[in-house]
Amino acid sequence: MKRTSRDIRTANRYEVLRQIIAESPTSRQELAAATGLSLATVATLVGELLDLRMITEVGFEDSAGGRPRGLVAVNASGGALIGVDIAETYVHVELFDLGLNVLARADEDMRPGESRPEQVVGQVAAAVGSVVAQAGVEAARVLGVGVSVPGQVDRDSGVAEYAPNWDWHDVPFLDLLAEHIAYPLYLDNPLRACAVAELWFGAARGRGDAVVVNLGTGVGAGLALGGGLHRGVSNSAGEWGHTTLVLDGRLCHCGNHGCVETYVGAPGIMQNLRELSPRSPLLHPEDQTATIEALAGALASGDPVALKVVRDTARYLGAGISDLINLLNPELVVLSSWVAARLGEPLLDEVRQAVARHTLRRPLAATEIVLSPIPTDPVSLGAATFALEGALQSVGQRQGAHKGPAKGPAKGPTKVAPKGTTQRTTTLARSRTAPPS
Amino acid sequence: MKRTSRDIRTANRYEVLRQIIAESPTSRQELAAATGLSLATVATLVGELLDLRMITEVGFEDSAGGRPRGLVAVNASGGALIGVDIAETYVHVELFDLGLNVLARADEDMRPGESRPEQVVGQVAAAVGSVVAQAGVEAARVLGVGVSVPGQVDRDSGVAEYAPNWDWHDVPFLDLLAEHIAYPLYLDNPLRACAVAELWFGAARGRGDAVVVNLGTGVGAGLALGGGLHRGVSNSAGEWGHTTLVLDGRLCHCGNHGCVETYVGAPGIMQNLRELSPRSPLLHPEDQTATIEALAGALASGDPVALKVVRDTARYLGAGISDLINLLNPELVVLSSWVAARLGEPLLDEVRQAVARHTLRRPLAATEIVLSPIPTDPVSLGAATFALEGALQSVGQRQGAHKGPAKGPAKGPTKVAPKGTTQRTTTLARSRTAPPS
Ligand SMILES: [Zn+2]
Ligand SMILES: [Zn+2]
Repeated sequence: MKRTSRDIRTANRYEVLRQIIAESPTSRQELAAATGLSLATVATLVGELLDLRMITEVGFEDSAGGRPRGLVAVNASGGALIGVDIAETYVHVELFDLGLNVLARADEDMRPGESRPEQVVGQVAAAVGSVVAQAGVEAARVLGVGVSVPGQVDRDSGVAEYAPNWDWHDVPFLDLLAEHIAYPLYLDNPLRACAVAELWFGAARGRGDAVVVNLGTGVGAGLALGGGLHRGVSNSAGEWGHTTLVLDGRLCHCGNHGCVETYVGAPGIMQNLRELSPRSPLLHPEDQTATIEALAGALASGDPVALKVVRDTARYLGAGISDLINLLNPELVVLSSWVAARLGEPLLDEVRQAVARHTLRRPLAATEIVLSPIPTDPVSLGAATFALEGALQSVGQRQGAHKGPAKGPAKGPTKVAPKGTTQRTTTLARSRTAPPS
Repeated sequence: MKRTSRDIRTANRYEVLRQIIAESPTSRQELAAATGLSLATVATLVGELLDLRMITEVGFEDSAGGRPRGLVAVNASGGALIGVDIAETYVHVELFDLGLNVLARADEDMRPGESRPEQVVGQVAAAVGSVVAQAGVEAARVLGVGVSVPGQVDRDSGVAEYAPNWDWHDVPFLDLLAEHIAYPLYLDNPLRACAVAELWFGAARGRGDAVVVNLGTGVGAGLALGGGLHRGVSNSAGEWGHTTLVLDGRLCHCGNHGCVETYVGAPGIMQNLRELSPRSPLLHPEDQTATIEALAGALASGDPVALKVVRDTARYLGAGISDLINLLNPELVVLSSWVAARLGEPLLDEVRQAVARHTLRRPLAATEIVLSPIPTDPVSLGAATFALEGALQSVGQRQGAHKGPAKGPAKGPTKVAPKGTTQRTTTLARSRTAPPS
């Protein structure tokens, strides 16, 4: 609620590490200049990060006429972070070093009817075991696992409160997962994962207030306000997908009518196509991904139906994004997630035109709309970032990460007892794995 | 953008003064307990406020077994603050002591065709001169004048960028006003004035994230996030009135269709009534105030048309407020400004029911919807609060208040040179003044 000096210290620690990750090697002087913090504050924070072995001293540079300046860099091998992207149709897991480079990936398909919590937990545990084994990192070096589950989640208790597409209600997801995985666990959802990924590594880094519009099966808006994520009082802020765009419009699975999501989520775009051309060969009735791919392909060849569908979608999306701009007056709007990535520049162009028609002059002039520059899966990157934030937050305290139902000793980020978990999940593994990149 | 330690110090200073205003006399120990700040921090901030003569030592209380504790209280006569509420049809000015008690009021009617900037500036100057004269305060004790102008404003330059109802564009309002008034001047708009009034003195005091829904001729939503006002990157956040509720719906003066304001602002409510009962005696075609008053009166006597109009309005308003709750997940929604005050509990009841139908379960459970408890004009109170914040912000620096076009010496809050302004504006006065309360 009120920001305390501890919050500020944590935020400053994020800021300094963010800058070191972006610009290694760098000096305390450069960090002070880049972050606006005092040299004394930077020196303290750098000392903490050195103690955590997240960064390392890498030598000196000459400063004109002065003493040589000590240089620090990310200690990429100082720890590993795991990001888990659980989507409606798949589980995607990535393991990162501390420079947030992907060391290993694992995927599991989720077939219809295989989305019971225990099944999904099994898939996640398998994929996590697989990436740890592939990357060959010691269990003790895994600082944490961030897990993104669609819908509304309670971070503190680790409960997936409501996942509409699977009809999950109050699933104690992290408790279930903690029976398989001994690393510190952090739960959140895709819209906030995408936002934190942009804040740390993407378009929002070092910028003012930003809104990260997440276009997938579901849609949402991660709010990066005041340099941090705006979570709301019960961590459910950002449900822009369930704001009304057309009063009494299309029925939404949330029970409301005319929600933004019903017009611009992947199923909504399919409906836009169906209304325009019910028998279009672009339409794959049971397959969102195939339909969006087909649209993207047809768009590239100038297909008029595809163009019209994108224009119709952009009209809805532009009105919805205008609402965000008029209400929040952000410096930046980022279009993220798989639908935005697939439809790319043609969608962006149409959205910019629609936004210009709907938005008030003053906030419009202050806003830029861009596609996410993050080349990999922003959800797993963001989920891993939650684990990184958790590790940074635990400096000088021992809380933040989820403890499983069997209350063992507190797990600090550097002293995890793996309890044979890696072995178990490895035997479960049936992963389609990509080679380490 | 990023919160600095200076921002935190200013926010803490606000917090401590807010608490002293609410609970005078009080001790440093009680302040520390109420604000969550350390005793050392509180002692420093109390020292600053004593130096500013905003508060004063008022004796000691016994603490059980310990040393007697020093008590402080607001130094109500230590300064005066003026709040100016410029609305579509009137100018209302109040002068407050430092306990934010109203010492004097002045009103000016604004007739159609009398809304040129120079005319409005003349009225404001007259009313300000009148309240200073009525209250008999020395010019040097006026810490500042906060001015609320509808529409979009640039606080830093003091420019009213766009006031739709008068078709004002880029009016250098504070520069014009500074030719008549020598006190430090602060410009903002009604939606932010209402929000800051709730934050300091109303329902949002000491609460988490709050949204203050401002229902007047225009509508907006002041966003009190993280204990402070969310202004956005160009101070235009909160334009909820111009978010789309009905795609392709009613034409709005902003050029868009289906804006929230066209359904729930006073003219929108008149339209709701017209659509329901075109020849209703409740309808005063050229008079918003009379129509809303008539509706309120008819409501009290159970008139079915009035009930239906309020229900229709609440349906729109509930959908729009649901959007705010789903997006921002606030702890509190406050209905403020004159339309909300007039339609009161019956509107609130209907709005709560409509919100419950539209909102997601998790954010709904975390939110309370209330009417503003502020008994006086929240806009002039909020405008005066901007002047108070300006005075507090200027501790240890000399900026924040607007300097007129003739660049004189910097005007700190305690060393204002009145330059005969009070006399001039007093002779201009043609105020209908209320007696000091
Ligand atoms: Zn919905
Ligand atoms: Zn509008």
